[in-house]
Amino acid sequence: MDYRIEKDTIGEVKVPADKYWGAQTERSRNNFKIGPVASMPMEIIHGFAYLKKAAAYANCELGVLAPEKRDAIAAVCEEILAGKLNDQFPLVIWQTGSGTQSNMNVNEVVAHRAHELAGKKIGEGEKTLSPNDDVNKSQSSNDTFPTGMHIACYKMIIEKTIPGIEALRDTLQAKSIAFKDVVKIGRTHLMDATPLTLGQEFSGYVSQLNHGLKAIKNTLAHLAELALGGTAVGTGLNTPKGYDVLVAKYIAEFTGLPFITAENKFEALAAHDAIVESHGALKQVAVSLNKIANDIRMMASGPRSGIGEIIIPANEPGSSIMPGKVNPTQAEALTMVCAQVMGNDVAITVGGTQGHYELNVFKPMMAYNLLQSAELIGDACLSFDENCAKGIEPNHKRIEELLNNSLMLVTALNTKIGYYKAAEIANTAHENGTTLREEAVRLGYVPAEEYDNWVDPKKMIGSLD
Amino acid sequence: MDYRIEKDTIGEVKVPADKYWGAQTERSRNNFKIGPVASMPMEIIHGFAYLKKAAAYANCELGVLAPEKRDAIAAVCEEILAGKLNDQFPLVIWQTGSGTQSNMNVNEVVAHRAHELAGKKIGEGEKTLSPNDDVNKSQSSNDTFPTGMHIACYKMIIEKTIPGIEALRDTLQAKSIAFKDVVKIGRTHLMDATPLTLGQEFSGYVSQLNHGLKAIKNTLAHLAELALGGTAVGTGLNTPKGYDVLVAKYIAEFTGLPFITAENKFEALAAHDAIVESHGALKQVAVSLNKIANDIRMMASGPRSGIGEIIIPANEPGSSIMPGKVNPTQAEALTMVCAQVMGNDVAITVGGTQGHYELNVFKPMMAYNLLQSAELIGDACLSFDENCAKGIEPNHKRIEELLNNSLMLVTALNTKIGYYKAAEIANTAHENGTTLREEAVRLGYVPAEEYDNWVDPKKMIGSLD
Amino acid sequence: MDYRIEKDTIGEVKVPADKYWGAQTERSRNNFKIGPVASMPMEIIHGFAYLKKAAAYANCELGVLAPEKRDAIAAVCEEILAGKLNDQFPLVIWQTGSGTQSNMNVNEVVAHRAHELAGKKIGEGEKTLSPNDDVNKSQSSNDTFPTGMHIACYKMIIEKTIPGIEALRDTLQAKSIAFKDVVKIGRTHLMDATPLTLGQEFSGYVSQLNHGLKAIKNTLAHLAELALGGTAVGTGLNTPKGYDVLVAKYIAEFTGLPFITAENKFEALAAHDAIVESHGALKQVAVSLNKIANDIRMMASGPRSGIGEIIIPANEPGSSIMPGKVNPTQAEALTMVCAQVMGNDVAITVGGTQGHYELNVFKPMMAYNLLQSAELIGDACLSFDENCAKGIEPNHKRIEELLNNSLMLVTALNTKIGYYKAAEIANTAHENGTTLREEAVRLGYVPAEEYDNWVDPKKMIGSLD
Amino acid sequence: MDYRIEKDTIGEVKVPADKYWGAQTERSRNNFKIGPVASMPMEIIHGFAYLKKAAAYANCELGVLAPEKRDAIAAVCEEILAGKLNDQFPLVIWQTGSGTQSNMNVNEVVAHRAHELAGKKIGEGEKTLSPNDDVNKSQSSNDTFPTGMHIACYKMIIEKTIPGIEALRDTLQAKSIAFKDVVKIGRTHLMDATPLTLGQEFSGYVSQLNHGLKAIKNTLAHLAELALGGTAVGTGLNTPKGYDVLVAKYIAEFTGLPFITAENKFEALAAHDAIVESHGALKQVAVSLNKIANDIRMMASGPRSGIGEIIIPANEPGSSIMPGKVNPTQAEALTMVCAQVMGNDVAITVGGTQGHYELNVFKPMMAYNLLQSAELIGDACLSFDENCAKGIEPNHKRIEELLNNSLMLVTALNTKIGYYKAAEIANTAHENGTTLREEAVRLGYVPAEEYDNWVDPKKMIGSLD
Repeated sequence: MDYRIEKDTIGEVKVPADKYWGAQTERSRNNFKIGPVASMPMEIIHGFAYLKKAAAYANCELGVLAPEKRDAIAAVCEEILAGKLNDQFPLVIWQTGSGTQSNMNVNEVVAHRAHELAGKKIGEGEKTLSPNDDVNKSQSSNDTFPTGMHIACYKMIIEKTIPGIEALRDTLQAKSIAFKDVVKIGRTHLMDATPLTLGQEFSGYVSQLNHGLKAIKNTLAHLAELALGGTAVGTGLNTPKGYDVLVAKYIAEFTGLPFITAENKFEALAAHDAIVESHGALKQVAVSLNKIANDIRMMASGPRSGIGEIIIPANEPGSSIMPGKVNPTQAEALTMVCAQVMGNDVAITVGGTQGHYELNVFKPMMAYNLLQSAELIGDACLSFDENCAKGIEPNHKRIEELLNNSLMLVTALNTKIGYYKAAEIANTAHENGTTLREEAVRLGYVPAEEYDNWVDPKKMIGSLD
Repeated sequence: MDYRIEKDTIGEVKVPADKYWGAQTERSRNNFKIGPVASMPMEIIHGFAYLKKAAAYANCELGVLAPEKRDAIAAVCEEILAGKLNDQFPLVIWQTGSGTQSNMNVNEVVAHRAHELAGKKIGEGEKTLSPNDDVNKSQSSNDTFPTGMHIACYKMIIEKTIPGIEALRDTLQAKSIAFKDVVKIGRTHLMDATPLTLGQEFSGYVSQLNHGLKAIKNTLAHLAELALGGTAVGTGLNTPKGYDVLVAKYIAEFTGLPFITAENKFEALAAHDAIVESHGALKQVAVSLNKIANDIRMMASGPRSGIGEIIIPANEPGSSIMPGKVNPTQAEALTMVCAQVMGNDVAITVGGTQGHYELNVFKPMMAYNLLQSAELIGDACLSFDENCAKGIEPNHKRIEELLNNSLMLVTALNTKIGYYKAAEIANTAHENGTTLREEAVRLGYVPAEEYDNWVDPKKMIGSLD
Repeated sequence: MDYRIEKDTIGEVKVPADKYWGAQTERSRNNFKIGPVASMPMEIIHGFAYLKKAAAYANCELGVLAPEKRDAIAAVCEEILAGKLNDQFPLVIWQTGSGTQSNMNVNEVVAHRAHELAGKKIGEGEKTLSPNDDVNKSQSSNDTFPTGMHIACYKMIIEKTIPGIEALRDTLQAKSIAFKDVVKIGRTHLMDATPLTLGQEFSGYVSQLNHGLKAIKNTLAHLAELALGGTAVGTGLNTPKGYDVLVAKYIAEFTGLPFITAENKFEALAAHDAIVESHGALKQVAVSLNKIANDIRMMASGPRSGIGEIIIPANEPGSSIMPGKVNPTQAEALTMVCAQVMGNDVAITVGGTQGHYELNVFKPMMAYNLLQSAELIGDACLSFDENCAKGIEPNHKRIEELLNNSLMLVTALNTKIGYYKAAEIANTAHENGTTLREEAVRLGYVPAEEYDNWVDPKKMIGSLD
Repeated sequence: MDYRIEKDTIGEVKVPADKYWGAQTERSRNNFKIGPVASMPMEIIHGFAYLKKAAAYANCELGVLAPEKRDAIAAVCEEILAGKLNDQFPLVIWQTGSGTQSNMNVNEVVAHRAHELAGKKIGEGEKTLSPNDDVNKSQSSNDTFPTGMHIACYKMIIEKTIPGIEALRDTLQAKSIAFKDVVKIGRTHLMDATPLTLGQEFSGYVSQLNHGLKAIKNTLAHLAELALGGTAVGTGLNTPKGYDVLVAKYIAEFTGLPFITAENKFEALAAHDAIVESHGALKQVAVSLNKIANDIRMMASGPRSGIGEIIIPANEPGSSIMPGKVNPTQAEALTMVCAQVMGNDVAITVGGTQGHYELNVFKPMMAYNLLQSAELIGDACLSFDENCAKGIEPNHKRIEELLNNSLMLVTALNTKIGYYKAAEIANTAHENGTTLREEAVRLGYVPAEEYDNWVDPKKMIGSLD
């Protein structure tokens, strides 16, 4: 392989000749061979592209960067956002905890690519841009990385997580309405209980997801706060006056999202409670989704020896050995995602506790976990929605069979004959394997002519629908 | 011990003669010998007292309960809230997951105690109240327990957690102002960095806690939703029309807190995302508190061989073997609480995922963990505030010594001579054990007469204070 | 209340006159009002009683403590172990992270009580024992607390956890044998699958618990290592030669458990990986128990509209509103315990990571969580065993009905006619609501006379029983 | 793109013409668009390659598979293991929880590639191998996937995790010996304490890692148990007699690792406690590594305003804004890995609890998390070892300065003058800013001529080294 020699403040490094990165990226590549290469999420690199461009605009507007440098920086940032330079970011998550090396990776790529765009050869002629003094002007890794990760996380939540949850919520809402007259047995403690409608059950899922969406949105204000302008320790050293507000304005403009400058830059560098907060809401949604997916696969269980109250789509052969088997595979993928999100929440929590003095150095790990959770939830909701939820249909025959068998219909008699006589009827029917009706009449507690009027599942589903 | 015979729908049970509880409580006591006795939090029993009284009022107003029964129920509930019957609730957290047995414990105690208050002897004469048909009227364990736990949790957060955090926040805010002119070295990656003020450091803590308080408050709307009125499966079977709204109104009135009826009763029984949500915010605050306590103990470390930039109160001898030792014990108690809260979050998360069909049966465990976290955070914040934070003082001599030694003051030269020459100055001073000033002048990069003007810590703390 | 004045190296403190504790205990009581009083587990206090007595014996044997002082110390330790002084330990978990204050609580109580046992009045006459120089001789909080917690945790695991798990394991093993001929439908993905015996299902539970017991026992060697002898930082400063080995020998003798001195005292003070390790095994068992309890309640679900393959004991009325309802309450208590243990594991993990330099200061929190988990698992296993597992019986009628319905019996045909034809039979029967037999013959894939021979559930349960 | 038509028991699917996979793989690709493509770890695919080959050998030896089919299967498995078919496995982790689709992916690729190797064109001529009836013979996804994941996990732990930990352990051990005479101040509660040697500190790290290695190895016996032979539900349906033992023998032979057939196949399919167990040990090591890395970065902090007792290698410029800054970046990468492992432990725990009946359907998620943790720990240990640990050197000047300042040397006087007088000396010196020596003599507690003899750090480091 061909190499060129690059230098940084520590000395010389050999860098692959066909890459735009420089000495510091190359050092990181060699010093951190941990896990798969290039694991730093591309969404964070894109977050950097937004902020580098915004910083160039703000610096220029405030008179500390020449317009031609601004434009040179912006041009490469556009290329990064267009995905043209994806192979220029080889670093891993497991590097320095400030993400300095990925910041420098971006600085180096922007500087070298700009040099090339200016028609020059890397390493020759006057430098078009200095990675530290121009591309990184008025910045530090300590404020750029948290800014990049907030941009990446906010975008992922807005573009993938929320739409995915909403799509599933809409389907469940539509099912709730469609199934509003399907009276079925209720179950508490997994045991037969009083009836409700299938639509009511689904309305509970809708309510969970609505609360979850509200919880996610409650966290976005914190996530919209950007550290940029704090530079090294939060004081804004080496930034021009007004820079922090202006650069956030540009980021908001370029991303179309309501970013603002953080009200306290010391928090914004030293703690990532905003990541903890947003991921907490994602974890809440994971809890909800797990419950929903579990219910659906239990209700769909069978086909002959399970519950079988609903039918879900058969998307693929379910077994490599059992012919004709169909499984609730979408529910499985979704609940695996939920478990992952619960784990990621702990990783983020542990990382969040460890800020020391002016800097939290678990940034890449925290961002990686939030991005993974946000993407997986969004994708898995869509997948579950398209390939399972939309196709759910009641198995009316089975639902009626199970409903009519139930001893818990006896509850309707509480207000007529009291809890204790009602219990006697149920217990006797259970022991004798008879129907409630038979025992209610035999015990003389209910006049035969009243039984069907008093014990009518359709009247037991309440006004709370 | 003296016993009396009590009966339920399963048969007879011997109950201690001096206790108000009945057969079902006794069965639970015998069947669930798990962990310390009477571990069901008293706050939940009090939540039940509020809701039983409110249900009696609502039932009466809606014409399904006689006024004298209402008053009999209310009278015992008042006794419970006054703490007069604390020894009547012997059950443990680790019982049925719906909390049915604690609901029945309350029902039985109310019924028997009311009988006694009516001047009768337990087991004799016509029953004053039936535990199931009167005290539990229009209720099920499935809606009372989550209502009781929401009341308990909401009250704990309002009465203990938030005031504790606010007290600490106020002290840190006062310190932030008091220390606004104390310029000190900053530290990133635990390494020397550019300066900031001690007040700025504390402002970051204030900002963390303010964001945390906001996050907690964001969750209260969900927690204010009460399941009561859903009865067995969420349909409101056996409740009079309008009962759910009315009973919530009475609970709000009796507690003075803004409780409302849950918009979806199916969710309110089958899922406890509200508990997950509120505890998620508590966990976020734990993350913040951990960072704050860690910083303070590191800055207070010494007295002679640590950082020693601040002095914290010496509240007790620190060592049983090392004479004269003083330790950051309040920080230790607080960070232990933080670790506990992080663990509790996982317990709650796991419990939250496990709702099946119409009921989540991890209710007592979830409530116990939230109550523990909410109480510990509130108490620990107050303890840390009173016994540590209020007494924090800067060690000016040490702060100045460490500040003036720092090589990172060189950063101020970036905008004058560029990053690379500045690095050369710092590296040379580091190698030679000299001062920045010496090397800056010797290398010819900074005129001697300009150095003190360009490199002035007081000018490096930015406008971002 | 009456008080006396006590002194320590910081100054004077008023202490309740009727208590044996001294100045340092009282300071802690006042400085750490966090959560319920006296929450420091009594098991740890008992651990201290063992080690104080052992230290007195070792010190005496090595010539640094007079025999009469040894005996005075031992006499009070015996009282503590007999439970006579339980009200003398008022401190909370949430104190200094080294547990120094509980160490001093014990030192003070031993010294004062010994003074009284010597016939003197507290505060008068020459001191019988000095809390620091005699009771704490050759010790530091830093090595006593981890020793006390290892003793407490080891004993709890040996005396409660393992016997509880073993009792349940034995019952499940007996059931596995009893049910060895009960052929039933298998279920994978919650869906109907090929048959197995109920005994085989239970053998899986037995195997899980056996592996779990082995995992717990694997951790005991680490937990048996005692820090005592390391004193302040692990060097053993101020201990006589041979003390560490000797004191461990005495602890082993007094407890009857195989304790030894830690091979590395620096680890033993600064890290509590042994607690992390043992709790990791408890968490594994919680995972197993959760699976087992879940299976059992699902198989017991019904009675009419669930799976209903097994019958579990009806220990109590299950519902305050639904008459005659019986619930799997023991499974619920057990799974709530499992969730708690999973949460406790994270608390312990977080605490374990935070050792700094020569000391981990999350000791009380870590010990509390392990003790809680170990006790709850032991108790809950016993409770589940006695009140549920022992009474489990197959519902033969239901089992056969579900078995014979199953389409997955078709799998037996794979080796006769291949996977794809077998799938066609199953799919056709599913669509037509017919039996496998009908379709197998109708499609011409299986001779009618061979069907019952080829498709016989009893032949499908393998040799792997 | 070119397509060909493939069929399975559900119907026809269009598959990219240049790929070996078939209908079921393609269905999964379309139905599970969750997260990055091809995320199923290649290590698991390789685990499948080993087991498919072993099954072919066992089937052949037991007379149910022709030798030419055995060889055809084995040939493709070799290609997979050689990495030649990496682009043939496009599926994601987030698929069916049994991993059926990845099993079928392997079955389809083996069958089609074997067809091609036989000189035929896919889709033409008689099938060389049937994916289900030949490649999957005597197997089910339910036993192959757990077998594949055990092989993958065991190999990763043996080949990467343990060697990485051992390498770091060896370096720390060498440092412990090299630093055995470097007496330094100890620190407890982050506060100055009695002295020890730097070598003793490092010996604690070595002991932690040795205990961790032992803990990992303790779990390997469980992980060595293979599910293969259990087929669909654990009964071994459709396997020839002796197959389970034989196939495990072949896997052991092909991998060179001590795999055996699981003693209980029902557990091996329905629960993955072995994964929980092994990951629990990895988490314990993460706890240890976190402590070690934290200590090292705190001791290396500075260079001028921190602790500065050790010097670590400067591998890269530490800051994009602060010239000359060097950071403990390897410690940061390592502690981020530790946080990730702690999170992964919860994901695995949650997945482990969710086995239902005969199958746990969180298999791919559990395997993914263990593989990630095992790889990251191994890599990060090596990286930390090479780029940090090996280069650690004491800063003798700083160590002596901090040691001699310490007030805690006073502890040596306990045995001479008692704890209380010693405390008075320390407190007075602290208040007056004087030395211990001055105050000891001034207070008349220590003869001037004895002081240096009694208070000698070199004598305070004990025999416990």
